[in-house]
Amino acid sequence: MPSITTEAQLAAFSLAPGFRTAATACGLKKSGALDLLMVWADEPCAAAGVFTTNRVQAAPVLVDRDALAHAPDRIRGVVANAGCANAVTGERGMTDAKRMQSVAARAVHAKPEEMLVLSTGVIGVFLDMDKLERGIATLHSGGASATHADAARAICTTDTRAKVASATVELSGGRVTIAGFAKGAGMIHPNMATMLSVITTDADIAPAALDRALRAAVGESFNRISVDGDMSTNDTVLMLASGQVGGSADDEGPFTAALATVCKSLARQIARDGEGATRLVELRITGAATEAQAHRVGDSIACSPLVKTAVHGNDPNWGRVLAAAGYSGEPIEPERVRLWFGDADDVQLLERGLPVAFDAARASALLQCDPCVIHLDLGLGDAQAIVWTCDFSAEYVRINADYTT
Amino acid sequence: MPSITTEAQLAAFSLAPGFRTAATACGLKKSGALDLLMVWADEPCAAAGVFTTNRVQAAPVLVDRDALAHAPDRIRGVVANAGCANAVTGERGMTDAKRMQSVAARAVHAKPEEMLVLSTGVIGVFLDMDKLERGIATLHSGGASATHADAARAICTTDTRAKVASATVELSGGRVTIAGFAKGAGMIHPNMATMLSVITTDADIAPAALDRALRAAVGESFNRISVDGDMSTNDTVLMLASGQVGGSADDEGPFTAALATVCKSLARQIARDGEGATRLVELRITGAATEAQAHRVGDSIACSPLVKTAVHGNDPNWGRVLAAAGYSGEPIEPERVRLWFGDADDVQLLERGLPVAFDAARASALLQCDPCVIHLDLGLGDAQAIVWTCDFSAEYVRINADYTT
Repeated sequence: MPSITTEAQLAAFSLAPGFRTAATACGLKKSGALDLLMVWADEPCAAAGVFTTNRVQAAPVLVDRDALAHAPDRIRGVVANAGCANAVTGERGMTDAKRMQSVAARAVHAKPEEMLVLSTGVIGVFLDMDKLERGIATLHSGGASATHADAARAICTTDTRAKVASATVELSGGRVTIAGFAKGAGMIHPNMATMLSVITTDADIAPAALDRALRAAVGESFNRISVDGDMSTNDTVLMLASGQVGGSADDEGPFTAALATVCKSLARQIARDGEGATRLVELRITGAATEAQAHRVGDSIACSPLVKTAVHGNDPNWGRVLAAAGYSGEPIEPERVRLWFGDADDVQLLERGLPVAFDAARASALLQCDPCVIHLDLGLGDAQAIVWTCDFSAEYVRINADYTT
Repeated sequence: MPSITTEAQLAAFSLAPGFRTAATACGLKKSGALDLLMVWADEPCAAAGVFTTNRVQAAPVLVDRDALAHAPDRIRGVVANAGCANAVTGERGMTDAKRMQSVAARAVHAKPEEMLVLSTGVIGVFLDMDKLERGIATLHSGGASATHADAARAICTTDTRAKVASATVELSGGRVTIAGFAKGAGMIHPNMATMLSVITTDADIAPAALDRALRAAVGESFNRISVDGDMSTNDTVLMLASGQVGGSADDEGPFTAALATVCKSLARQIARDGEGATRLVELRITGAATEAQAHRVGDSIACSPLVKTAVHGNDPNWGRVLAAAGYSGEPIEPERVRLWFGDADDVQLLERGLPVAFDAARASALLQCDPCVIHLDLGLGDAQAIVWTCDFSAEYVRINADYTT
């Protein structure tokens, strides 16, 4: 599974049948880049969402939760802006998010509660509603781009590249497409809906089943990545189903599996494009008592600045991996632990708690691989989990030391 | 309270009456710098220790726990090395730590279990026992330095400066000194005994009372700092009391307060000397429902790379502070939260969940102060806590990307 979207893949990208997009630059990004987009269908869609668990929730998160509670079977689309998160903006932020929702809804002849809203960017700044409303007007004039690639580009902030993924799956009613895009490079932490993503399908699936499928897929994809351990106030994954391809109850398993493939691809792309990152790091935790334990141990390692800087420096300082596992809060038993570097367990570093003599040059070379694979076996059971992160470079500091000013 | 030890202060530093030191370079540090030291008394001491809660515990931690369980009223001293942590070294590591303990004990005519052991440095590497034993022999020959400043220097690894602190307090039996040193710059995380520290006193205090005083003091000092969120396998604070100045049960309160002053000074010095740090960051969390809540919210902010890089860049991107409080796991209520920068709450950024218009240049200037003070009031109760961290610079990455190789 590739961890980047190439320019050729992006150019060929298409959402599921039934969905259209428009993207424009309305001036919220100082750079003048694309910063506003809509994804919509001409008919009502089933929809589902997974949101941040941060106690501080941005206005668009609250608006979307409300819309999905009221009209999960007749959502028409999503309007999204980059450059301003509309978070920690109080009542005025709520008023602005609802206005964004209703202006976009009107443009496609929908009711306000049938439109979802996403915002990403700086926290604690109000939306420039003049720019935004002019931008939404442009989305439906000749001035906006209709390519799905530009929609994927418009949602990006510090991302170095757009992130798209798609899959098809044969269901009882025919071949179904699942396709979406995502943004995210910083303030990324696992175990909650992370970043922004919009995923579409032409499958005919009820909101409750769509919600189940999305939660299952997010649980093994977006919830398994970390860039910096910081959880955003705006994290949202939205899924829309246009219902063009009929199905049956038997389809839920294969549909969920295909959706998980799309979500995993997008999640890996987000980790790979972590701010300042030079490679994807895949942490394979096996031999755990439970999957939750494997996930928590992997999460602890994924958040360790010392592990991530060692990977960046190609430094096989494996003690840091073990130290991070040791403070995960899980009752690991050091004398049972085994550790390898490499996609095929190429170099072993630890055998049941004891250091193994290893070729330092070879271990260092394995850390330079993209993805760089680290495999930790806890020796406690049969459960496992994969967690993705990235290396930690000085460039991360440079990007984040000077973001608003 | 200063957050560094000046060269003049270091030169004048002395442990409590009754304690001697010796320090030498035995070759464990490649640089040839001081890397081995002993602190000892001629008479048996009361002793107490606080240790890492990491599931992976280094051999010296296990040896010291055992010694303090058996002979807390007749500890004679501490032998410590830098350059090798003797962690994740299995049975051979335990044998080496016990050998280090017994060789050092013999040098002062003590029993093995009357000597404590500290090691710090790279994980997963065996101690070079030849160098170590020759070094311990040197400690008692004319070749070793007897200044207490050199003992404080010998324990350092990536520290840019030695860290010492002392206080005196008038107790019922007379004036008592509390004086110690510490090391630590990376793999520093709050809520557990952090780093290595040796603290001495001439007070006559029973082991159980010493243990209570040490735990209380550590709880509001070493457990309130974070450099990188990584918890070491070797973290240990050891306290020795030579008993030269008698006391009474009434002395425990003033003694604990004076000890806390010493521990806070050392803890602040560790945070200030965080790897790559350019300033100390003091997080004042007030208005919490409980002190534990205030601590956890402060801890979450102290561990946020996004907050720490923003401070480094003098960037008043305060939304990151609020986002980190929001994912602390505590049920904060954003609409009650207030936020200021500056030692005297100089600039307010947030008033009960709403952004306050502020002078960006002034806010930026306050972030450049050392210490840089950030005050978050949760509006939930009367409890408070202070947590210390440092800014996060590209230098941290440089230091840690290439530590073993």
